[in-house]
Amino acid sequence: MRDPSAASGPPSFVHLSRLAPAGATLVIEGDEAHYLSRVVRVRAGETVRASDGGGGVATLEVLAVTPRVEVRVASREQRVRSAELEIWCGAPEGERADWMIEKLAELGAARLLPLQAERGAWNKLEARRERWERLAIAAMRQSLSPWRLEVLPPATLDAMLARADRAGARWLCQPGGGSPPGPGVATGTTIAVVGPSSGFSDAELKRLREQGFTDVGLSSRRLRTETAALAIAALWACAGPSADTEASGGAGLS
Amino acid sequence: MRDPSAASGPPSFVHLSRLAPAGATLVIEGDEAHYLSRVVRVRAGETVRASDGGGGVATLEVLAVTPRVEVRVASREQRVRSAELEIWCGAPEGERADWMIEKLAELGAARLLPLQAERGAWNKLEARRERWERLAIAAMRQSLSPWRLEVLPPATLDAMLARADRAGARWLCQPGGGSPPGPGVATGTTIAVVGPSSGFSDAELKRLREQGFTDVGLSSRRLRTETAALAIAALWACAGPSADTEASGGAGLS
Repeated sequence: MRDPSAASGPPSFVHLSRLAPAGATLVIEGDEAHYLSRVVRVRAGETVRASDGGGGVATLEVLAVTPRVEVRVASREQRVRSAELEIWCGAPEGERADWMIEKLAELGAARLLPLQAERGAWNKLEARRERWERLAIAAMRQSLSPWRLEVLPPATLDAMLARADRAGARWLCQPGGGSPPGPGVATGTTIAVVGPSSGFSDAELKRLREQGFTDVGLSSRRLRTETAALAIAALWACAGPSADTEASGGAGLS
Repeated sequence: MRDPSAASGPPSFVHLSRLAPAGATLVIEGDEAHYLSRVVRVRAGETVRASDGGGGVATLEVLAVTPRVEVRVASREQRVRSAELEIWCGAPEGERADWMIEKLAELGAARLLPLQAERGAWNKLEARRERWERLAIAAMRQSLSPWRLEVLPPATLDAMLARADRAGARWLCQPGGGSPPGPGVATGTTIAVVGPSSGFSDAELKRLREQGFTDVGLSSRRLRTETAALAIAALWACAGPSADTEASGGAGLS
């Protein structure tokens, strides 16, 4: 079925790990070529949009579909992000990280840092990173965003705290915490920390609060790790910048 | 492994479809008995909490674990909900409804109404309802809530609009919409409408807006159906009532 957004919404949007300068020709292969040739069914002469996942966006003119897709870079620009969300997250249970990553990517989180907490370790991370990369790229395409969720290697709280200074806002997602800021206030880097499925230890909570992390309550209910991460990303998406994606063209989805 | 919440958090919490009056004895079987006897490992003399999913909550004294669990109802009360969220949702793609239902239940949505939209139909619903019921009960136990997400049979927009009058707030989740209300403002019934994966038709949008639904923008990105539903539930959870669950006892999760 032809992608309905191709008819009425913004042009098709793909991820290319490297964007050539304007004027250059490129050959697109693999998943993105399949998406263009089989799902969206682009034809020679049509225009598509592409991003490198790092804010670089380009308009591509399709030269040939074989089913590899040959394109010429018609124009290229670099976007700058005015606000970004970084999530330090303890391990959720089982395979729940997979869809958490998809949803964090769709909601526009910049980075996920898997946090090795006292009461919960991330396991088999290397085997899952390739899958997460694919999910993050698919979500980026879906959400028409020029930025791709970056999943960093797992680290301890000590290592993460060494990078807390960069953040303007520091949120500790914790039951009973205060209300997070309302819409329109997210600027710079916000770090949100979510505990593992068994929760943070008292010592971990103390260290985070000493480093300026403020308790933020997301619900009167007890949320799973992945649900809390997703909820804070949804709140941030609603409070965040409004003009950094391709979606303003009016896709059918909310 | 013993549930860590049993040691430091609130007492174990189970779902019972019918709660007997105080003083009566009950035999718990099936999934909930398994949870109590194998996961939490309750013992005779201990106390657990239970809910019927409709605001009824009880304290139960464990009499015997065989592994069926015999209990005596020590006390029983009925909670009243001051605010509730009802979601009218077009069909997401594939199996994405499963985890959407789990997350809506965890975040405390009251009802999900599968909306048969012009551009998207819910399929094989009957075969999935039993699974959804189990997911909603598990999420209720997890989130320590006395209310269970209710999943209604699928219906057309016409049928749903006939029940719109009950709602104080009516949100149409749509790209480019205004900011949803901030924390602390959710009272009464809020209805949030989310389009199917191919979006609402112009005619559907017109009808919803004529019935008082206000466009609410959740993100500058294009969100999938299930992501939009989850995002609005997260915003509502943050804006909603704070004292209607068991979680105030201080579980380790946010």
